[in-house]
Amino acid sequence: MKPWTPTNPAFADAVRASFTRQSMMATLGAAIVRLAPGEVDLAAPFAPQFGQQNGFWHAGAVASLADSANGYAAFTLAPAGTDVLAVEFKINLLAPAVGDRFVACGRVVRPGRTLTVCQAEVFAETAAGGAASGPARNLVATMSSTLIVRRRASDPSFPNDG
Amino acid sequence: MKPWTPTNPAFADAVRASFTRQSMMATLGAAIVRLAPGEVDLAAPFAPQFGQQNGFWHAGAVASLADSANGYAAFTLAPAGTDVLAVEFKINLLAPAVGDRFVACGRVVRPGRTLTVCQAEVFAETAAGGAASGPARNLVATMSSTLIVRRRASDPSFPNDG
Amino acid sequence: MKPWTPTNPAFADAVRASFTRQSMMATLGAAIVRLAPGEVDLAAPFAPQFGQQNGFWHAGAVASLADSANGYAAFTLAPAGTDVLAVEFKINLLAPAVGDRFVACGRVVRPGRTLTVCQAEVFAETAAGGAASGPARNLVATMSSTLIVRRRASDPSFPNDG
Amino acid sequence: MKPWTPTNPAFADAVRASFTRQSMMATLGAAIVRLAPGEVDLAAPFAPQFGQQNGFWHAGAVASLADSANGYAAFTLAPAGTDVLAVEFKINLLAPAVGDRFVACGRVVRPGRTLTVCQAEVFAETAAGGAASGPARNLVATMSSTLIVRRRASDPSFPNDG
Repeated sequence: MKPWTPTNPAFADAVRASFTRQSMMATLGAAIVRLAPGEVDLAAPFAPQFGQQNGFWHAGAVASLADSANGYAAFTLAPAGTDVLAVEFKINLLAPAVGDRFVACGRVVRPGRTLTVCQAEVFAETAAGGAASGPARNLVATMSSTLIVRRRASDPSFPNDG
Repeated sequence: MKPWTPTNPAFADAVRASFTRQSMMATLGAAIVRLAPGEVDLAAPFAPQFGQQNGFWHAGAVASLADSANGYAAFTLAPAGTDVLAVEFKINLLAPAVGDRFVACGRVVRPGRTLTVCQAEVFAETAAGGAASGPARNLVATMSSTLIVRRRASDPSFPNDG
Repeated sequence: MKPWTPTNPAFADAVRASFTRQSMMATLGAAIVRLAPGEVDLAAPFAPQFGQQNGFWHAGAVASLADSANGYAAFTLAPAGTDVLAVEFKINLLAPAVGDRFVACGRVVRPGRTLTVCQAEVFAETAAGGAASGPARNLVATMSSTLIVRRRASDPSFPNDG
Repeated sequence: MKPWTPTNPAFADAVRASFTRQSMMATLGAAIVRLAPGEVDLAAPFAPQFGQQNGFWHAGAVASLADSANGYAAFTLAPAGTDVLAVEFKINLLAPAVGDRFVACGRVVRPGRTLTVCQAEVFAETAAGGAASGPARNLVATMSSTLIVRRRASDPSFPNDG
């Protein structure tokens, strides 16, 4: 997407501090593998405790990683002192989430003062057998998200701020 | 919704057997609390390891529970020997997922030979203070899902069956 | 849904005035057939100029009617002097849009100061042959929408208010 | 996306023949402006009869164009003798649909034997004032769609094939 300009010069620190507080990311074993204005990639290893009935990664695990990638992509462009919350997302599950590691790449499509729209792609990576070949990379899901930017001090009673 | 007629008389056993294999549900501490033709409710306690940055349940945890509720609601109406996989879902996050327990109620909207559409509501329940009052119940998310029904024997290479 | 309380006592007039300005509704031949706090039903006759390749109503026509039904359902609860715009919607197309008339029933799921979430069901109605039987009514689509409430005076440069 | 290989050598003729039958496209004044394997762009001029309450193009008009662009993108890769129907789509409305002309660019993300997933971007184009400057182009919406491929002879009783 565009070369976005962050309004918070300390955006990278803000993202890392918030990511550390997301216990779900620690539970999944996720890490930030790319962090730039409007762009955040998160990676997590396959682990059997997040499976569905066939042993694939559960769609909810895929969605967790993609939702956080989009949320932090939006957060890179948010002003200091704000928080970002998803108000909705939609995921298309393109292939079974089978692999050694999953990478969710979140990108800002349109930043806004109130609402930001992001898209994520989730890849399953499998360590390849042959010496010459690199890891196989398969697109397993796409997500579009709407996120709301809020003053941190505001009442935490919601995304939707009733 | 309608009083649906299951085609598999052993649908309840089929759902319970599949649910036991979903390690993600065990990880979340989820249990089946309602199981009827076209209707499945799943409940899970709040647990701090699935949080987002403010300590609320992560949207991905909410989505995991709702996705499985919709999947099993669809599965109650599927023929014996088939499996059900989500091809997409969309979730609206209406309020922060704060509570003692979350209940996702999945319902079939339209069953089909190939595709089934379901809707889920997710409630956050909080044990109330007063003796007389029951638990407070707050609608925190709604989800719509499309699921594909496949022969169990078929190649597991996908929802989308490339 | 709940018995919502409108904040604008003249909500019905506000909806009717806005509806008259939506030229798309006039083009489709749509009319308001129900108008209550948080609830708006719109109906439009089948017309061959809005078809897809098989002669069914185009998914875009179905979406137009449902989007406006949800928008006006949200608008019934908005303060005087505001406008409501959709920021996103998702539609599941359950059956071909075949019938004599289409009715979209929009309902508020959660109203908010900034964002409101609505759901719509779209029915295809067909005049039945027999004297005793009423019109057949078939659910052809469901839609979930997020809408933003804005001051009317504000810069019209967007939903997303960049 | 990838360089897809069509299975129907006459895919372009098949798309054009179907497009001619979509009366909604004629009503909007839409034309095919790009047609390649997995890629279809449709353009339509602004016209006041498809407006919402502020005179912008109605979200349903934007959705109609994007839905058809995605449908025909999927159709370029479908076998001869089949038809393609949308089973669901989700649209994010990023900016008001203001402009002289709208262009929806539909792209296949993942083709499948049964289901195909596409994404579209919709741009509003405005003829610029200055001699040197070309038309301004603004991204106003993104859409993700799931489409089902069916034998043409099959019972038309559905997308969802009950």
